[in-house]
Amino acid sequence: MGTMTAADPSLIAIDWGTTSFRAYLVGGRARVLERVAEPFGILNVPDGNFEAAFERLIGPWLARLGELPVLACGMIGSRQGWREAPYAECPATTGSLAGKLVEIATRAGQRLWLVPGVMQVDADGVPDVMRGEETQVVGSLRPDDPRPRLFVLPGTHSKWVMAKGDRIVRFATFMTGELYALLRENSILARLMEGDSNDPTAFRRGVAYAAGGQGELLKRLFSARTLGLFNKLPATGLASYLSGLMIGAEVAEASRWFGAARRTASAVTVIGSAQLAKLYRSALQARGFSGRLGPEDAAVPGLVRIAAAAGLLPPRRAQ
Amino acid sequence: MGTMTAADPSLIAIDWGTTSFRAYLVGGRARVLERVAEPFGILNVPDGNFEAAFERLIGPWLARLGELPVLACGMIGSRQGWREAPYAECPATTGSLAGKLVEIATRAGQRLWLVPGVMQVDADGVPDVMRGEETQVVGSLRPDDPRPRLFVLPGTHSKWVMAKGDRIVRFATFMTGELYALLRENSILARLMEGDSNDPTAFRRGVAYAAGGQGELLKRLFSARTLGLFNKLPATGLASYLSGLMIGAEVAEASRWFGAARRTASAVTVIGSAQLAKLYRSALQARGFSGRLGPEDAAVPGLVRIAAAAGLLPPRRAQ
Repeated sequence: MGTMTAADPSLIAIDWGTTSFRAYLVGGRARVLERVAEPFGILNVPDGNFEAAFERLIGPWLARLGELPVLACGMIGSRQGWREAPYAECPATTGSLAGKLVEIATRAGQRLWLVPGVMQVDADGVPDVMRGEETQVVGSLRPDDPRPRLFVLPGTHSKWVMAKGDRIVRFATFMTGELYALLRENSILARLMEGDSNDPTAFRRGVAYAAGGQGELLKRLFSARTLGLFNKLPATGLASYLSGLMIGAEVAEASRWFGAARRTASAVTVIGSAQLAKLYRSALQARGFSGRLGPEDAAVPGLVRIAAAAGLLPPRRAQ
Repeated sequence: MGTMTAADPSLIAIDWGTTSFRAYLVGGRARVLERVAEPFGILNVPDGNFEAAFERLIGPWLARLGELPVLACGMIGSRQGWREAPYAECPATTGSLAGKLVEIATRAGQRLWLVPGVMQVDADGVPDVMRGEETQVVGSLRPDDPRPRLFVLPGTHSKWVMAKGDRIVRFATFMTGELYALLRENSILARLMEGDSNDPTAFRRGVAYAAGGQGELLKRLFSARTLGLFNKLPATGLASYLSGLMIGAEVAEASRWFGAARRTASAVTVIGSAQLAKLYRSALQARGFSGRLGPEDAAVPGLVRIAAAAGLLPPRRAQ
């Protein structure tokens, strides 16, 4: 193999989650050369035939380019996915994740590897887990920086991750997105609401109210009804207000949860869609954090790092 | 009118809520002589024809007994009910509620009165409201006892009420019941659950976990998934665990919310169904409260007191 450039494909990186499938043809310096995005999350793969989906979605790259290492993260490695990749324990490093890759060989002779999720058990004996988010964070780790850093990955189940150097030290899951969706769609609160969440003033008001007291969420949620009943918020602002209440509550909870780390890590890196990241940065700022935006396609640099640590990448100059 | 006894009907008391209709033929000393219970809450009255429902359900008593005062509390006095009885402001007393009764005259010539709900506005300008619960609390007030007392009325939207003497001083709404139902029925948590909430050990474990830290509910909820995933709780115990988490969170929030009152009022009177009251008493005890059971048909003594304060009851000896 001659000298490679950034434009030479060296890895197929796949972020295969519950509801979406994203694959990247990656060159040097984690540069994305081509991408495929399809709604074939593990819940939507016909007949749960992951191999057929893989052949259909990735096959054209392999046919064109020949053998390339393939590394996938996300729910594809869960018990409901293609094959279970048992959790790595927290603290987890790029190396410990790379050491627990699970290999699959397809009938067509292609090999691919699955990244494990990460688990921890708290002092009460209660486990927490993530799968996919660890890889997104790995891509943003700074191995030479010993200071604690905080990441938030908003979503159905938001993850907050504290990292130091090359280590994911601990993390926590917040059910913000799912609870918001349930309340927005099926609750008594929803009856007064008109339209979606795009009223920044109402959003900030929700954030501010959530931050009061000591975060009595069950109580404060009811304000999304009474402010509507008494015409103190327009019906078109109530969904944004609720979103602000929920995200504000999450930021307040996480801020308490990470305690000392919260004080030393005054910046939080937000890894997520542009729309959610904007809301989270607004809520973070209201709480005294500065919210930094993480990379788009955050799984890619993480998968490249893990692939490199696992020895899956071809030798390369000047990387 | 001659001398009356406790067995002589003196009032028709109606607790007409969102999903249920309960009417009581009441004699002296708030004694219930007869009762009618039907699923005709205001949302289930055919065509919203409240007068027709009233005639059908109460008419037989009136035909048999002649004219009697009729007093109703609950959502029947809301904007969605028969007629709106505007809220009384907090602090509210038996007298202030009696002074804001709204009268209705039916086409058949019967008069009835509706009890207002109660509202308050907190320091952030956020209103809170209750309608029906105020009457249940009035029935348990002790006009001569100046000490603060706490009540909880569990339900879709639980109400906590602080009272002193004859005054409802303040109150707060917690969306516990509704959130539990949404999570139990429609959430990712529900997927692992089997059966209903009847595992006291799992319930207490949920209460204990909710009481940890500073009540990070969005975070702690996820334990109802991970404990199931890791087989640390049986699938048949997960609904009880979630119930314990939610009720435990409510008790913890209310305990903080009522601050000083919580310390002086170490007993909390639970007004609600036997099943819910049992769960709440268990959660209250775990938090250092003693949970007392309020009266069954709690609206009845409240309606009798309000009717008396409004001069609706016939003069009576030895009451």
